[in-house]
Amino acid sequence: MRVFRFSLSVAALGLVVWLSACARGATGGAPAPGPARGQVVVSGGDTIVLIGPPTVVDTLPAVAPGRFDTGKMWTFENPPLDYFQQEYGFRPSAQWLERVRLAALRLPNCTASFVSPNGLVMSNHHCARESATAVSREGEDLLTNGFYAATQADERRVPDLYVDQLVVIRDVTAEVQAGIPATGPEEQQIAARDQKIEEVAERLSGETGLRCDVTSLYHGGKYSSYCYRRYDDVRLVFAPETQIGYFGGDYDNFTYPRYDLDVSFFRVYGPDGQSFQTQHYLTWSDSGAAEGSPVFVIGNPGSTSRLNTVAQLEYRRDHQYPSTIRLLESRAGVLDRYIARHPDQRSTYINDYFSYTNSLKAYTGELKGLRTPELMARKVAFEKAFQAAVRSDSALRRQYGSLWDEIARLRRQIADVAPRVNALNQGGSLRSQTLATALGVLQYAQAATSGMVPDSVLEAFRAELLATEINRELDAMILAAQIEDAVQLLGPDDPFVRDALQGRGVEAAATSIVNPSVLPDSARRAALLANPADLATTPDPAIRLMRSTLPRLRAAFQEFQRLTDAEEVRTSRLARALFDVYGAHIPPDATFTLRIADGVVKGYQYNGTIAPVFTTFYGLYDRHFSHAGRPDWALPDRWRQPPAGFNLATPLNFVTTNDIIGGNSGSPVINAAGQLVGLIFDGNIESLPGDFIYTTETNRAIAVHSAGILEALRHVYGATRIVTELEATRR
Amino acid sequence: MRVFRFSLSVAALGLVVWLSACARGATGGAPAPGPARGQVVVSGGDTIVLIGPPTVVDTLPAVAPGRFDTGKMWTFENPPLDYFQQEYGFRPSAQWLERVRLAALRLPNCTASFVSPNGLVMSNHHCARESATAVSREGEDLLTNGFYAATQADERRVPDLYVDQLVVIRDVTAEVQAGIPATGPEEQQIAARDQKIEEVAERLSGETGLRCDVTSLYHGGKYSSYCYRRYDDVRLVFAPETQIGYFGGDYDNFTYPRYDLDVSFFRVYGPDGQSFQTQHYLTWSDSGAAEGSPVFVIGNPGSTSRLNTVAQLEYRRDHQYPSTIRLLESRAGVLDRYIARHPDQRSTYINDYFSYTNSLKAYTGELKGLRTPELMARKVAFEKAFQAAVRSDSALRRQYGSLWDEIARLRRQIADVAPRVNALNQGGSLRSQTLATALGVLQYAQAATSGMVPDSVLEAFRAELLATEINRELDAMILAAQIEDAVQLLGPDDPFVRDALQGRGVEAAATSIVNPSVLPDSARRAALLANPADLATTPDPAIRLMRSTLPRLRAAFQEFQRLTDAEEVRTSRLARALFDVYGAHIPPDATFTLRIADGVVKGYQYNGTIAPVFTTFYGLYDRHFSHAGRPDWALPDRWRQPPAGFNLATPLNFVTTNDIIGGNSGSPVINAAGQLVGLIFDGNIESLPGDFIYTTETNRAIAVHSAGILEALRHVYGATRIVTELEATRR
Repeated sequence: MRVFRFSLSVAALGLVVWLSACARGATGGAPAPGPARGQVVVSGGDTIVLIGPPTVVDTLPAVAPGRFDTGKMWTFENPPLDYFQQEYGFRPSAQWLERVRLAALRLPNCTASFVSPNGLVMSNHHCARESATAVSREGEDLLTNGFYAATQADERRVPDLYVDQLVVIRDVTAEVQAGIPATGPEEQQIAARDQKIEEVAERLSGETGLRCDVTSLYHGGKYSSYCYRRYDDVRLVFAPETQIGYFGGDYDNFTYPRYDLDVSFFRVYGPDGQSFQTQHYLTWSDSGAAEGSPVFVIGNPGSTSRLNTVAQLEYRRDHQYPSTIRLLESRAGVLDRYIARHPDQRSTYINDYFSYTNSLKAYTGELKGLRTPELMARKVAFEKAFQAAVRSDSALRRQYGSLWDEIARLRRQIADVAPRVNALNQGGSLRSQTLATALGVLQYAQAATSGMVPDSVLEAFRAELLATEINRELDAMILAAQIEDAVQLLGPDDPFVRDALQGRGVEAAATSIVNPSVLPDSARRAALLANPADLATTPDPAIRLMRSTLPRLRAAFQEFQRLTDAEEVRTSRLARALFDVYGAHIPPDATFTLRIADGVVKGYQYNGTIAPVFTTFYGLYDRHFSHAGRPDWALPDRWRQPPAGFNLATPLNFVTTNDIIGGNSGSPVINAAGQLVGLIFDGNIESLPGDFIYTTETNRAIAVHSAGILEALRHVYGATRIVTELEATRR
Repeated sequence: MRVFRFSLSVAALGLVVWLSACARGATGGAPAPGPARGQVVVSGGDTIVLIGPPTVVDTLPAVAPGRFDTGKMWTFENPPLDYFQQEYGFRPSAQWLERVRLAALRLPNCTASFVSPNGLVMSNHHCARESATAVSREGEDLLTNGFYAATQADERRVPDLYVDQLVVIRDVTAEVQAGIPATGPEEQQIAARDQKIEEVAERLSGETGLRCDVTSLYHGGKYSSYCYRRYDDVRLVFAPETQIGYFGGDYDNFTYPRYDLDVSFFRVYGPDGQSFQTQHYLTWSDSGAAEGSPVFVIGNPGSTSRLNTVAQLEYRRDHQYPSTIRLLESRAGVLDRYIARHPDQRSTYINDYFSYTNSLKAYTGELKGLRTPELMARKVAFEKAFQAAVRSDSALRRQYGSLWDEIARLRRQIADVAPRVNALNQGGSLRSQTLATALGVLQYAQAATSGMVPDSVLEAFRAELLATEINRELDAMILAAQIEDAVQLLGPDDPFVRDALQGRGVEAAATSIVNPSVLPDSARRAALLANPADLATTPDPAIRLMRSTLPRLRAAFQEFQRLTDAEEVRTSRLARALFDVYGAHIPPDATFTLRIADGVVKGYQYNGTIAPVFTTFYGLYDRHFSHAGRPDWALPDRWRQPPAGFNLATPLNFVTTNDIIGGNSGSPVINAAGQLVGLIFDGNIESLPGDFIYTTETNRAIAVHSAGILEALRHVYGATRIVTELEATRR
């Protein structure tokens, strides 16, 4: 503890005080409380105050639009070579770019990369969870206990797993845009676009023999076709124990400083059953990246909203997130009370509970960003600059000038209808499964008689309805919370609210709906599905309630859909305006397609101090012992006593300013020499507003350090074979 | 990274979407961007939004006044025994209270305690800094290198150091209050009170043979006399190296998780030169306190503002802190630029720079609290409850009912005059030393001729004026910033601003004042002081400027003083009202007198995860290696290689909910058995709003763990003698 009050000059002010004291005839003061060290108390009851207009204090500097407010997720078709040259003195060659593009891979939900000429692939442990479970044999639990194939023959093929390599990129903007009618109803425009996209993708797939998608960049400002080579013999080579691969669990997720060996290895095999040989792989760096050095993340960021208008962000800030958070808090509270009442069922429900609290963490982090005046001011400044550019050109002004106002108007309308959608909507673990099933059963019956729904879809739907398990007690608690929501959202006189309550309190009403309903009973539910005609007349309270609600829900939803369609068209036009004004100087929003993001290795201000650039294995043990007894920080057996020779000072995780988001998990972090220095696995808590604005003050990507990976493979897992293979790639 | 977007039910909502899509004739959507794991995209351009009225999300629960909003710094004359009993099932006996009171000691700026029957005293390293320097001999630097007296004969007496033990407490409220006239000018009331306090203290000192103070509690609601026994032969026994005693330096100050061996040992000797023998010492706990267990901090918190009214806090929030922060930022910026220009002088100025940034950290932390709506709402709720209590009683209402409005009015007036005081005031390292010295010289001359100032005061003042060193270049930069402040605070037409600028830009003006002035030249300054008559006529630009400014500054300051005096009287009456309403159920603001604060050992939500209850030596090494090369986290030589047998998993620091503030440094943390389990040395960054409100959500006291102290003494310092002495106290 240091004393922080500032002394004013004793020499100057002290005497002013003294003379004043003289003037009023006092010769002494009350015995001063012993001032803490360095503190000068200059007058009896107050310290001299320093006053002026309020100033916002924050680590964020200006509110001028930042050059990179929309981020740095550059496409490979438009890498900003001049900017790289100017910023880092490094101009990637075409070969450099091709090599890293072809070394990078896409997993179904993650990124990965080739790290050896023999098809060795690296990604995150959390991207290999399902694989570890899938290749576990009778009596094995490889997800929990980890897996290492001691020989290549021991590598296990993961059923249905594939990796995609981005081979061909084509600009198909003109073709797609030509297929969209310039006038006509909005939904027809959208449908025509979707159809055109499908056509182009199919045609290109046929021409190239690859798997081609068409991706809308800049919300339709540009369309690119990405064609992938798919490798579908992928075998698991190494995955650590979950306790070390997800060390700190949901608690430490989205946080830094961090101590997480979130790494896994796969190997791609060719059709001949031999390991796939490739020239396109990343070479290994033992030393990793130094503080301040430039690094590049090659990966597939999933989705961002950086081009959202201020009105759209205000909507999120003032409506969407507060309401989502309230819903999650309510349901987390319900689960918490239920688990307290039934401690024996803790294991059944605790994951749902953590899933709520983890979502709360994320939404709260984003909302905090939206409520940070400096961040919003930067968005406002960016929008003003963009509007000024549009309005200074008469053609652009005619075409795009009114879009901001139109979007703002639509968002106001959406704010009107959304509470109705949300209150009437039924579904997900956040809502009563009894009502959700009632809604499902009614819709199933309508779909079945419409003749418009394919049998396969109907069958899948029926199976899902049959498989739902409902815990009456918990479900009644959730329904009570849900009715309370409806009262708040729609008022006491809404027909749904009146039907649900029937003059009862929310808890009594919920019990009276859930308990007598046949739906929680799977046998009686199946009987009901078999006789859909009964649905129109059954007195089942849940079905009765949803019978009267479905038409209103559908109407509200269609209105909602109409408004969001109308907004989507305008959003696309605005994005095209952005593209017209800024071109590829601004990268498009993330679309789960390959991007290259530049950044530097850099700490940040955090928690009153500075977060270090990297953490070490010492910190892993600190967290373990300081959270003694908490399962999230337990260590696997083999880690409890680090083996002799294991250097705890080895870097484990590190932070960079690269622009990433969900989907980037498993992305390689490479230096200018093209060497792999790390493996992206998370962002810090300050990165959450990154969905709508990219900043470098405190937003950080978190990666596993290449030296930490090697140290653990060598000393803890004795994975000599892999260590040798990785080390052989060093140039 | 985990995906956090919530899926709505595919079963229910999916079909609604599907049916809607049918309705508009579309059969497919755009190829969805690969959703990250677990994410369900339910419609093309938007996910279903959940909407409702905005909700404030925070870890702080209600806005009702908390029972302990005003804190838990209980006095020994009014320990809340029933509450302790009810909360912890522990009712301290009179013996227990007497033992811990007499074991606790007060250092000039800190707290300490007897920890052995042989007069061994423990406090913080940062409370022993000056002692370590003072006992360093020729060629030694014990502050940097640490000190351990291998034998008792090696213990070194610290010149002028003493510790005070609180022996007698008397309520002198009636006597003091009787001495204050109920009517008459406010400054006479204050003067009469101060005189009475001095009388009572002197009389009691005479009666008891002890050193008696009279302390105003509840801002005059109650007066207590505390009589101390002073021990003035205090010898240094052990102080670690600054690098480990202040590990993390200013960066880590006010932060947690923390890794700091902030401990020192002294020994009290009797008049016979032998170690002082006492029964009143704390016994040692090896194991420390378990999570959730109650602990008590005995110490001397310096100062709090918990009884501030909402108007006073709003003033701080809207005027005082923003302005102070702006001033500190401005001057930190000046120093930063100066150091960048003169890297060779870094060592001379870097401590000032850190002192600014550390103050910024603290003020920013407090301001953050003041700007947290939930915290202010609790203060408002508390004030409303208090007002209601006063206004519901007609006597109380007559006496106190208008005080809140009066204080609010005074604060508005203070807000008017304070900018003038601040802009005209000169002093401290935040302002030009040339102008400060000019002001000092002028005041010195006036004081010398007034005949009202004792020679000793004059001489000290003269010596200070002569000793000031002024760096012209830096001083001109500071003066430029200062003139800019004045322009902002007073406007361009203020006489001071016009005199200073004389139509020039701020930088030119500053240079033209500082460079030709004789004051930065110490010889010419001495000559000037020797001929004060010259002051009235000298054309020296700094003196000329302050000659015209001094009368205005004095007038502004007297007005400021008048207003704060008037406020002080009302604050005292309000505090008496508080005391009339709540009595000792609410503890008084801190007054650097002995208190007992209860709390529990408890982690808290931080940085998106939870801060552990304690840290370990593993974390010390993590911080060291992860901040490799940064001096604040360098380790002393003896720590670089931890010796064999040293258990890195030993707890080093831990956190509790005890209510502490500056002055509590060195306070013992004890368990219900009266054993010492830790040593307070800091608060976390979330504790900074503790100046005005005590909360337990995230505000934490930080202590060194008893086990960590012993482990380091034993294995790193080989301080067997002290270890044996501490261990011998265990019961």
